[in-house]
Amino acid sequence: MKKGRLIVSASEISADILYASGFFCPDPFIFFSAGSEKAVVLSTLEYQRALSQVKKGVKVYHDLAFAKKENAHPGKLELIIAISEKTGIKDWEVPPDFSLKYARDLEKKGIKTTISESAFFPARAVKTKREISFIAKAQKATESAMKMAQRMIAEASVDKNSSLILNGEILSSERLRSEIETELKRNGYSASRTITACGRQSSEPHNAGNGPLKAGQVIIADIFPRSDATGYWGDMTRTFFKGKAPSTIKRAFDAVFEAKEKSRAMLKAGVKAAAVYRKAFEVLEKRGFPTGSKNGLNYGFIHGLGHGVGLEIHEQPRVSPMNHGILEEGNVISVEPGLYYPEWGGIRIEDLAIIGESSHVLLNSPAAELEIP
Amino acid sequence: MKKGRLIVSASEISADILYASGFFCPDPFIFFSAGSEKAVVLSTLEYQRALSQVKKGVKVYHDLAFAKKENAHPGKLELIIAISEKTGIKDWEVPPDFSLKYARDLEKKGIKTTISESAFFPARAVKTKREISFIAKAQKATESAMKMAQRMIAEASVDKNSSLILNGEILSSERLRSEIETELKRNGYSASRTITACGRQSSEPHNAGNGPLKAGQVIIADIFPRSDATGYWGDMTRTFFKGKAPSTIKRAFDAVFEAKEKSRAMLKAGVKAAAVYRKAFEVLEKRGFPTGSKNGLNYGFIHGLGHGVGLEIHEQPRVSPMNHGILEEGNVISVEPGLYYPEWGGIRIEDLAIIGESSHVLLNSPAAELEIP
Repeated sequence: MKKGRLIVSASEISADILYASGFFCPDPFIFFSAGSEKAVVLSTLEYQRALSQVKKGVKVYHDLAFAKKENAHPGKLELIIAISEKTGIKDWEVPPDFSLKYARDLEKKGIKTTISESAFFPARAVKTKREISFIAKAQKATESAMKMAQRMIAEASVDKNSSLILNGEILSSERLRSEIETELKRNGYSASRTITACGRQSSEPHNAGNGPLKAGQVIIADIFPRSDATGYWGDMTRTFFKGKAPSTIKRAFDAVFEAKEKSRAMLKAGVKAAAVYRKAFEVLEKRGFPTGSKNGLNYGFIHGLGHGVGLEIHEQPRVSPMNHGILEEGNVISVEPGLYYPEWGGIRIEDLAIIGESSHVLLNSPAAELEIP
Repeated sequence: MKKGRLIVSASEISADILYASGFFCPDPFIFFSAGSEKAVVLSTLEYQRALSQVKKGVKVYHDLAFAKKENAHPGKLELIIAISEKTGIKDWEVPPDFSLKYARDLEKKGIKTTISESAFFPARAVKTKREISFIAKAQKATESAMKMAQRMIAEASVDKNSSLILNGEILSSERLRSEIETELKRNGYSASRTITACGRQSSEPHNAGNGPLKAGQVIIADIFPRSDATGYWGDMTRTFFKGKAPSTIKRAFDAVFEAKEKSRAMLKAGVKAAAVYRKAFEVLEKRGFPTGSKNGLNYGFIHGLGHGVGLEIHEQPRVSPMNHGILEEGNVISVEPGLYYPEWGGIRIEDLAIIGESSHVLLNSPAAELEIP
């Protein structure tokens, strides 16, 4: 029997439909495959553009090709039913995040949906050379923005409140974020909620930060832009300290750096994801930085070691204690151990790596400096 | 019986969960309401940040509060089951785009999901004063970027190939888009795929455009940025022509402008959305610009008149021939008639309006000039 696969979503919502079609579309549309045919179905608004922008090997249908004669504005349900009739498919394989509403409406019409057992496109986790070139380019833009951020902190002076001052004005989290994101945008990359968090704020891993950046406190910069042209992401984190850091913070930084270096030394095809996480965890513990909770506050290494990066910023494979699967050649993953303490803040250092047959390739320089004079 | 409502999604994917929680989170999380309680459930990674960033009236739970004792990393399914037990809710109302996988897994555990009959949060279509102030601010940034674009075209000279030249370099679609988006980013707004399409490219309404902008051809600029701070969008379109436009294009522009003015004159609470669309359609027909298709190519007014704008760029209410509902006080909608001809391109003019009790308020100046000397 012919196998049918179906996605109904917008490109910003579903990386699967973007991967399948190569088509950036702000509104939901239909992708299906039936036997060897792959196709998208688009309304008059998008049809003409799709003909030149949808990726090779994917047929572009005008939705009116599946609509009842009297209906100039067919709904998705009507279209899927017509596609099912035309292709003879009565049971569509769909992604886990397929809309419940469509599934139930189709069921009423005798059309089944079956959720894919594994990822809908397992190949998404194994990057092609072309995809790697897109991510490498994105990471280059990311690293260059990181260098700019470091330069701004280096060039800043310090006022009597310990606030950083650059060109006569306070260098705040907001200002540094804006400068980073504007520079990225100028280069064709979109970034929002870039993390430029100082002091205690940085103890919350996704706190973007606000207020003046201060000397004598940690500053985490986590930069993760997406290419407007390709849809692929970069991701990199460094932790800075304006001035001389106290020994606890220095030791924490060194421990995180060592955790990153020792865990990434394990990276190659066939290694268990959980084992790589475990290595980072152990280095941190051995260095005297255990993970736990006190008075309802969590401290230590409170997140996974890394995640796949591609058309989504967080995708497969996860490098976490729960992932007992192995890493594969062509995976692109972040390696980002961190330590967080509600009392003074966090340290996180993040690189991006391609898994190779017997080793890995970094997409950025592994160097990291804490103290900025 | 206590009513339960449930969303499981990331803020970038589901505007509903962003609306419910006010929390920007890159990964999927749980929002639920049970009777009068509203709550979000977050992992250690996000918990601390959520305590200060989630909107008032919504309780923040650490996921471990619902996890089995031995499980430090509970999955969403386990959490929802525990929440169902704790709240006594066995049938959750969910949005139409609720993940099919979660629904099926819950069903196996005897927990039902019922899709909301209308929009999950009908209030999203009826903006509060606070929301209107956010959209108004976004539209101000949009209009200012539009003025910059117009100025750049005005200041450009024309070379022997009719290409626009600004500061000694070709002014291309890509360059104009980059300048617009960089300026918006500098002001705290994210924009991608801004439309700066010239000539025939502009006959495809969502073609972003590429290559040199040319004198003697239409140039559509459609700018739709999102506030990084609030998540609300702006949306505005103008069509320009460097030099003297031929009479067909002038007539088409005047027809679209009249369609916009006459249809928006109808805007007030209680008017049928389809009737407003119909008015624009009729003005265009009466002015000699019918809609149809020839040799498989569509021409004329090939899309709806407008759409709601809020936490999504395209949301309820739609101002289209299929929407037989009425507009309500507090709706914020775009009014954007257009005409498209594969032979020479398109004209689109778009304003943003708030529906009032007996009229409407525009969030931008309604003025539009075609020709730029």
